[in-house]
Amino acid sequence: MSSRNRKFYLEDIPLDEAWRRFIAAMESSGMWGEFPGEELPLEEALGRVTATPVWAALSSPGYHASAMDGYAVRSDETLGATETSPKRLKIGSYGQARYVDTGDPIPSWADAVIMIENTQYIEENGCEFIEIQASVAPWTAIRPMGEDMVATELVLPASHLLNPVDLGAIAGCGHATVNVRRRPRIAIVPTGTELVTAEKAALSGVKSGDIIEYNSLVLSAQVRQWGGVPTRYPIVADDYERIKKTVLEAAATHDLVLVNAGSSAGSEDFTANIVEKLGTLLVHGVAIRPGHPVILGTVTDRKIPIIGLPGYPVSCALTGEIFVEPLISHWLGLPKMEKPKIKAIMSRKLLSPIGEDEWVRVTVGQVGERTVAAPLSRGAGVITSLVRADGIVRIPRFSEGVDAGHEVIVELYRDPSEIERTIVHIGSHDLCLDLLSQYLAGAGRRFTSANAGSLGGLTALRRGDAHLAGSHLLDPATGEYNISYVKQYLAGVSVVLVTFMHREQGLIVASGNPKGIKGLEDLARDDVRYSNRQRGAGTRILLDYHLNNLGIAPEKVKGYQREEYTHLAVAVAVQSGAADCGLGIAAAAHALDLNFIPFEKERYDLVIPRRHYESDLLAPLLDLIRGPNLRKVVGGLPGYDTTHMGEVVIEL
Amino acid sequence: MSSRNRKFYLEDIPLDEAWRRFIAAMESSGMWGEFPGEELPLEEALGRVTATPVWAALSSPGYHASAMDGYAVRSDETLGATETSPKRLKIGSYGQARYVDTGDPIPSWADAVIMIENTQYIEENGCEFIEIQASVAPWTAIRPMGEDMVATELVLPASHLLNPVDLGAIAGCGHATVNVRRRPRIAIVPTGTELVTAEKAALSGVKSGDIIEYNSLVLSAQVRQWGGVPTRYPIVADDYERIKKTVLEAAATHDLVLVNAGSSAGSEDFTANIVEKLGTLLVHGVAIRPGHPVILGTVTDRKIPIIGLPGYPVSCALTGEIFVEPLISHWLGLPKMEKPKIKAIMSRKLLSPIGEDEWVRVTVGQVGERTVAAPLSRGAGVITSLVRADGIVRIPRFSEGVDAGHEVIVELYRDPSEIERTIVHIGSHDLCLDLLSQYLAGAGRRFTSANAGSLGGLTALRRGDAHLAGSHLLDPATGEYNISYVKQYLAGVSVVLVTFMHREQGLIVASGNPKGIKGLEDLARDDVRYSNRQRGAGTRILLDYHLNNLGIAPEKVKGYQREEYTHLAVAVAVQSGAADCGLGIAAAAHALDLNFIPFEKERYDLVIPRRHYESDLLAPLLDLIRGPNLRKVVGGLPGYDTTHMGEVVIEL
Repeated sequence: MSSRNRKFYLEDIPLDEAWRRFIAAMESSGMWGEFPGEELPLEEALGRVTATPVWAALSSPGYHASAMDGYAVRSDETLGATETSPKRLKIGSYGQARYVDTGDPIPSWADAVIMIENTQYIEENGCEFIEIQASVAPWTAIRPMGEDMVATELVLPASHLLNPVDLGAIAGCGHATVNVRRRPRIAIVPTGTELVTAEKAALSGVKSGDIIEYNSLVLSAQVRQWGGVPTRYPIVADDYERIKKTVLEAAATHDLVLVNAGSSAGSEDFTANIVEKLGTLLVHGVAIRPGHPVILGTVTDRKIPIIGLPGYPVSCALTGEIFVEPLISHWLGLPKMEKPKIKAIMSRKLLSPIGEDEWVRVTVGQVGERTVAAPLSRGAGVITSLVRADGIVRIPRFSEGVDAGHEVIVELYRDPSEIERTIVHIGSHDLCLDLLSQYLAGAGRRFTSANAGSLGGLTALRRGDAHLAGSHLLDPATGEYNISYVKQYLAGVSVVLVTFMHREQGLIVASGNPKGIKGLEDLARDDVRYSNRQRGAGTRILLDYHLNNLGIAPEKVKGYQREEYTHLAVAVAVQSGAADCGLGIAAAAHALDLNFIPFEKERYDLVIPRRHYESDLLAPLLDLIRGPNLRKVVGGLPGYDTTHMGEVVIEL
Repeated sequence: MSSRNRKFYLEDIPLDEAWRRFIAAMESSGMWGEFPGEELPLEEALGRVTATPVWAALSSPGYHASAMDGYAVRSDETLGATETSPKRLKIGSYGQARYVDTGDPIPSWADAVIMIENTQYIEENGCEFIEIQASVAPWTAIRPMGEDMVATELVLPASHLLNPVDLGAIAGCGHATVNVRRRPRIAIVPTGTELVTAEKAALSGVKSGDIIEYNSLVLSAQVRQWGGVPTRYPIVADDYERIKKTVLEAAATHDLVLVNAGSSAGSEDFTANIVEKLGTLLVHGVAIRPGHPVILGTVTDRKIPIIGLPGYPVSCALTGEIFVEPLISHWLGLPKMEKPKIKAIMSRKLLSPIGEDEWVRVTVGQVGERTVAAPLSRGAGVITSLVRADGIVRIPRFSEGVDAGHEVIVELYRDPSEIERTIVHIGSHDLCLDLLSQYLAGAGRRFTSANAGSLGGLTALRRGDAHLAGSHLLDPATGEYNISYVKQYLAGVSVVLVTFMHREQGLIVASGNPKGIKGLEDLARDDVRYSNRQRGAGTRILLDYHLNNLGIAPEKVKGYQREEYTHLAVAVAVQSGAADCGLGIAAAAHALDLNFIPFEKERYDLVIPRRHYESDLLAPLLDLIRGPNLRKVVGGLPGYDTTHMGEVVIEL
């Protein structure tokens, strides 16, 4: 069994020390430095980086040019012209006035232009004249030669990222090409016997143990975005010799080789051995999180840098940002890419391991005057946490974390203007929030949603962390939904409750209901495993209410301790066989082709503080839940009733 | 003469009204709305926009997966294991423990994973065991099925701009392709008999009247940057029929036609007539500046939108931003592109015409705590003003402008981090500043330089608008440079004077000196036209000092009133025949192959407030002027002496 031969040698090298070693190795092999230039036609140079300064070859304009449509004149011949005693100037090539279009050269005898609107054309005795009612100063309406650029002048420095107007300036001073840095060629080698391509997965599905390979897709796109040219190799199985052969091939024709994964210390992690065999293993294990199992080294006689990236998709993408982006930028002569930074309040306490630099994905919302950062899943396998992330908070080594309410610096993945048009929902989970999100995108709003349960949503509103909270909290005393809870949790806050919809709650059971479950009373059975929701979720409160009524103690319910955060997660637990049933909504059961035993129709409201209710930001959301389109789609889903959609329940 | 037939019908339609008409026309023809989707392989989808929501086709992970390298176990069999009484579990496919790599499926009988580091491998009597010293809770180190994405879940909404991690998420939930909006096809038709291509200009130069055509190059690059597909047509001469034919061709195969220029009301401006002939002329003349002569219309039966863009390069590029970008974004379903915004103090008073929205190009500098915006040339023909611009300040209609010291909102072309690493120089012009700029780019600093003259630089330092000022101010009383001026203008400010270099001042005269000019005394001659520098320039002060000594009254000097802002501009005036001589530096004469009559060697210092002198920002600049590389290059230029380069003259 291969596990026996495992070496436990993953190091914990601080990030700056890892970089120091990597740079020193590249310096010694001549791979550390800006790349040489290549001459490109201007049409192909957008987004490229100048390798040498651009000096003007020609002046622009190359002659004294008329700045207007009008007549070129000698200014001293216009002296004395007034409204009451206009002056006439004879038109002709060698006369006193000559018509010029904008951009035309000024005749050598002229030194000013009168715009055509200020002239009167007169024909008399076969001669043409203009009549003017005011004099002009010398050089009026003339663009002097070299006004824009003078030959020999610096137009652009080296190491400049070319944008559209730069290309115009380079053309305008007499160049048809520009010398730009060669783009780094980056080989991306995905390794792993368990990997299948997205194409194969889409065509014929995946079987247990298959992992869809997309890290190389993400890395390719990142490399392209950062200015490199990626080569995406086919998947290589976990086979020492085949990986070694591919690395050698890649190193022969590329400037950097990325191997993903095999960078850890598991039984089939060959990358470190191969780097050691083919060159120098500089670093194996960096004190960063996510992303710990990183390999840095150089291979072959040419000492081509090689990076082993971890296999978890979040780790892979982030270590790409941490190691590959700065290297490409350096080769291109650009400063390391900086994300826009903003200050935000951390919405909840975050513990971070001392000894590691941690990159925490967060969503960011502008809620009134507060800019709030909410941490997302820290699971390195959860790519959607990066998809949903608005930015990153770095928790440095030697820090234990951040307290709730403390200020942090967020490095934004998005433009700050996107944050400003983002509606932040924290609260109960419902599948219709996805639909709302989709419709809002068409109305110019982003919608981010954190599943904190109904009670979590109300406390988030109290802290000022969200614009609205979805809630379905049954008050056992009154049989009424939400109102008593809002009064209690948001006392003193002016709030509007708007009904989103009514929905069926019930037991989600496996297809065909093999355990013959009929209702909540079956949760007391020894052979029934339950999938529970987290504390504070309306569904959990509903369960506890009914268990109490039925006289079933929670400790009698198998699986009561394991908490899921969404209806779909409960449905998945049932689908996968991890549980036999779970309380949830009909739509979740339906989505995964499971059976559903309805037992309660509940009201799901949106709780909205008045100041947000009346804001421009939320206006499209209210329009949507009061308009016909969303109502039609939600009404078409199983288990939903849209009769009261958009109605105000109460204003508090 | 065609000017006789000129129609003066350029309107002055407010921007919002122009847009209203344009949108209404497109709505009626079905051209206003989001474009349909096309299915693309994920590898080609970076930067594209989703046309439909992406729903997960598969769950990820698709099974309960091990989160670590270790042993899958039944958690209840680990109960009771401690350091003092470890437990043994038998290894085997159907045993109590089975080895799993990270990502492997959990056997159906197991419900937790113990990481390998927490196990001890034991072989005994031909059987394999692990020994553990702690129990594990159910679901420890397991990534439950659907942890990342659950089949049927919304992964991305429609109208979402795809970045690298999005592609990964789409692949990870079972798709190999994505439905993205078709990119708008934009035809760009450059018109003008006077136009020559950059290729021709670079090959064989330009003659008087030639204009290098690069607006279509800039527009193409803009369109590409904004997500469209540009077609750049060859130059069409100013010929009504040929332009009409090209517009018809372009409209048949594109979503939008851009005609540049011919959009004004000059004798050869055919665009408006052609639009009227082929469809509907909606707008001719918009109340914006620069960019007034804009045409909006629709052509052909398909009512394809057409925009006539003004010919001045700055007007063309800006009206591209104002009209073309929002249209492309709309078609792609994206919100109008927003530039990052910052607040800044306007460095000087800016008058703006009432009745027009004005876009003013500015440089932006972070000088200590002040963020300062300095307006650039407002000439619509000066493309370098856009190249140098860090951003745009909008002066709305009904405003007369902005006072110096007032706060303005700058829409940035650059990332704010670029502003933070920018060194702002305001002061005397010297060609070596270009070299400094170029070397600083290699050291991670941007260097912006405004030519305000030596005195202008000192007053800018006093206001806190710049980090340093180049100065060469001769004190006639002492024969000493700069010190007395700095004491006077920067009284109370702690300042360091560092010598940049010494340089030759003299008279720049035409090649061969045809007028036989020998010295400043010739400026009194009737046949000698002088090209002067602006008030506050050290060179102007030098001239006035010597004229006074020679007893020559300024009004006797022909051309004394016309001011140039740089040495090169003076040299150009001489080269072009607009003047016979001008006072300036040897390098400027040399650059344009002119003759030079030296008469004074002067000291050019950098005046640096101490707090900037000691800042990290300026450290690379001081390193450069004290290192060997820049000294060598400057020393190699005609008329420069670097003996004292980098020396501190005095600390005040």
